[in-house]
Amino acid sequence: MIYSFDADVKAHAQRIEAALAAYLSEPALSGPGIAPARLVSAMRHGSLNGGKRLRPLVVAQTAAIFGVVPEATVQAGLAVELVHCYSLVHDDLPAMDDDDLRRGLPTVHRAFDDATAILAGDALLTHAFGLLADSKAHPDPQVRVRLVTELATGAGAGGMVGGQMRDIEGETSPLTDRGIAQMQAMKTGALIRAAVRIGAIIGGAASEQLADLTAYAEAAGRAFQLADDILDITATAAVLGKATGKDQGQGKQTIVSRIGVEAARRQLGDMVHQALTALVPFGEAALPLRETARFFADRPN
Amino acid sequence: MIYSFDADVKAHAQRIEAALAAYLSEPALSGPGIAPARLVSAMRHGSLNGGKRLRPLVVAQTAAIFGVVPEATVQAGLAVELVHCYSLVHDDLPAMDDDDLRRGLPTVHRAFDDATAILAGDALLTHAFGLLADSKAHPDPQVRVRLVTELATGAGAGGMVGGQMRDIEGETSPLTDRGIAQMQAMKTGALIRAAVRIGAIIGGAASEQLADLTAYAEAAGRAFQLADDILDITATAAVLGKATGKDQGQGKQTIVSRIGVEAARRQLGDMVHQALTALVPFGEAALPLRETARFFADRPN
Repeated sequence: MIYSFDADVKAHAQRIEAALAAYLSEPALSGPGIAPARLVSAMRHGSLNGGKRLRPLVVAQTAAIFGVVPEATVQAGLAVELVHCYSLVHDDLPAMDDDDLRRGLPTVHRAFDDATAILAGDALLTHAFGLLADSKAHPDPQVRVRLVTELATGAGAGGMVGGQMRDIEGETSPLTDRGIAQMQAMKTGALIRAAVRIGAIIGGAASEQLADLTAYAEAAGRAFQLADDILDITATAAVLGKATGKDQGQGKQTIVSRIGVEAARRQLGDMVHQALTALVPFGEAALPLRETARFFADRPN
Repeated sequence: MIYSFDADVKAHAQRIEAALAAYLSEPALSGPGIAPARLVSAMRHGSLNGGKRLRPLVVAQTAAIFGVVPEATVQAGLAVELVHCYSLVHDDLPAMDDDDLRRGLPTVHRAFDDATAILAGDALLTHAFGLLADSKAHPDPQVRVRLVTELATGAGAGGMVGGQMRDIEGETSPLTDRGIAQMQAMKTGALIRAAVRIGAIIGGAASEQLADLTAYAEAAGRAFQLADDILDITATAAVLGKATGKDQGQGKQTIVSRIGVEAARRQLGDMVHQALTALVPFGEAALPLRETARFFADRPN
């Protein structure tokens, strides 16, 4: 059978989109009280936007190395995706990046209001952990607590949120090249790393395998961010569905603004090579993850 | 031995304050990257404010019914307290309640800035779940996933965050008396309910016991909120350490604004009675929880 990356991405994205749409509903989100319709709408607006769902994709692709079927990774994939979506909802707020558009549509605080966007983000983050604690994420509770730990570590102060903080600090106080790389490894890389590790843990990876896959994730995540920074300079708003040149306009520091597009492209190539090298021990089973690393580097938007 | 509620509260608060101070530090919060100092400071500012730590207290008091020592509930108590603290940090934002003071000190967004407050709240929420997934919360992973589920349900769209959304909606569209009660049961009640249930689960409560303790928590939570609304009208800013009459000023609807202080005090008495009745099956072991329900109703601030 010939592996088609495009078909893989599409099938995964449809699976996740359908699962997100089913989960982000009043019955599934209710607890001691009923989830308010406006809050559910805002959560849906911030999540059901036809994204590529790359983080759930790598959860599934990593677990697949160990023979886990994609369906068995959907619950954990949803959790990682909800964290990604919440981070975008909060990052878009006027107090943060102040973005009006996301994938060509009004951001949550523009479609609703700032308070609703803050709460919708909070709720998406909260429910992500509820999803991982549920037996649908994995039958073994010992595995599920590890998934919760991974997501909290990747999304927390030493991961995604910490990266966002450093990014904001960098607007007013200059970062070194190394500081930029560290900031980006946290802001974007940490959640991709968590996604891969979550897939590996679901698959029952041995500790050496987990280390190799973590090395893959870190290099692939770095490639993803480099590609993003290059696109911010070179792509058009129509292709990205959001404003371009924005990082520069906000005085945000990226590797591209420091070393230029060409040097950044060379670094990008190095990172893809590193990612692929880390996958060598897994042989053919890692083909989908290899294609994903290439896609991270070459994606048009 | 005579039980002293004041001594119990004080000992618990000191235990939680010390554990919070130790946990909210760069080493404990770091992950793939180092937790930024500014973020850690903001998380500390939003959490280490000498509160009474009533939610961890009820976690400990409930678990104590089943013979669990207070020290064994600290980790779970911290998690609940971090969720409470994050909710205050976000609620105080200009886009939400726009409060400058909290316990007599500048709120996080005043001491830092709005973006930092958003991120500090996000990080507190994220790490709360990490705390529950850790073996220090309970040796049995099956119990830990239940704790995560309880916290996510209590804090999520059908709980605390949903209640906050309804509260904001109520500023512009009138709620019925029942709607106000439902909103408050979510906004304040759901996390108190989660705290009690978390204590019960740590204690290994049977399902009937869990149901009784949930009934206690719901009545005690209602009493807590009624007392809060009454204090908003009757107390002075100096006693509360925050602005009074604020709910009225913002057009927020409370039971007190609908039925008056005297009728609200009668309802408060009924709720305390309900809470105490739910504890009857637990006999003397529930004395601390009984005192807490009374304190919720009679507290000066």
